[in-house]
Amino acid sequence: MRIVTIGATGTIGSAVAAELGDRHALILASLQRAPERVDIADPGSIRGLFDKVGRVDAVVSAAGRAAFKPLADLSDADYELSLRHKLMGQVNVLRFGLNSVADAGSITLTAGFLARYPSVGSAAVSLVNSALEGLTRAAALEAPRGIRVNVVSPPWIVETLQKLGRPPAGGIPVSQVARSYVRSIEGSETGQVFDPRSA
Amino acid sequence: MRIVTIGATGTIGSAVAAELGDRHALILASLQRAPERVDIADPGSIRGLFDKVGRVDAVVSAAGRAAFKPLADLSDADYELSLRHKLMGQVNVLRFGLNSVADAGSITLTAGFLARYPSVGSAAVSLVNSALEGLTRAAALEAPRGIRVNVVSPPWIVETLQKLGRPPAGGIPVSQVARSYVRSIEGSETGQVFDPRSA
Repeated sequence: MRIVTIGATGTIGSAVAAELGDRHALILASLQRAPERVDIADPGSIRGLFDKVGRVDAVVSAAGRAAFKPLADLSDADYELSLRHKLMGQVNVLRFGLNSVADAGSITLTAGFLARYPSVGSAAVSLVNSALEGLTRAAALEAPRGIRVNVVSPPWIVETLQKLGRPPAGGIPVSQVARSYVRSIEGSETGQVFDPRSA
Repeated sequence: MRIVTIGATGTIGSAVAAELGDRHALILASLQRAPERVDIADPGSIRGLFDKVGRVDAVVSAAGRAAFKPLADLSDADYELSLRHKLMGQVNVLRFGLNSVADAGSITLTAGFLARYPSVGSAAVSLVNSALEGLTRAAALEAPRGIRVNVVSPPWIVETLQKLGRPPAGGIPVSQVARSYVRSIEGSETGQVFDPRSA
């Protein structure tokens, strides 16, 4: 398969590429460091990427920023960033990607387990992640030409916690998270929210 | 209790007011027809309402528009309306309302069961409703002074189906929906998504 991976140089994107790269043709895209450049906060940039890559069998999005901070400190700008970047960025990857994906292909987005297991500071992130889960369940009903749509909702990742200087005991290895993306791409499910802890 | 009801002249808001009006002091607000005027798409209008009404024991939001149309027809403007109106409108009712609600009071928002049970045409609505459910679960963890935060996710309502000229058999009476708001206001739960079918 030809697979576009957006956010390909991030913790999750790199691990997904490592899992898939031995048997698929990967097109790696990110904001700055991958061969293809895309800014998911810019709808024109997403359209430009899909115009350039042409027909693909799968699209993976593992990109998007949202504001993690106490409820009382979340500003208009924090909500605006979260909605424009992680939420509408991925909504637009889905919308514009549907035109580029081959029959019976797939689109896989990334939410996060704070959607269902919130913590102090997660109000905007929980909002965005839940929105992506709801969108995915609905969009899968209407994706044309047998295209499947799923979302992965990872918990904390060991490698991310290590980068943040936090104890990694609460996380799971990113390689385990990557397997949910493989399941979405190579399997036959649609409209699903994958929890890598149980996938 | 003093209770502000936003969207007080709508199908749900009217029924909630009817359930509560015999034992609480209601302040009814809506875009055009209630005694108090508020446009939830305008943050300044929401702030103005709370400035005017002063301290209250509960806030109910039963207002907000979102675009219900086929996935392929949802435009940038449809997503923008849905995010600005039903989603950020109610996020802002929560944010600004927290300053006006008395200790141990409550804020109750309105999502909808398309969050978890999507249908063709519901992509933007499912996104918004899921977002409100995720926000509520998270915000309840950080609401100050014992303030509770819940969201009601109603299914189709008989009276709404009748107004739309559709068979009412798939809906539940609005009086049953209103009881979930009463439970949120008069009960002690927080961070909950109420499904009026099982409440």
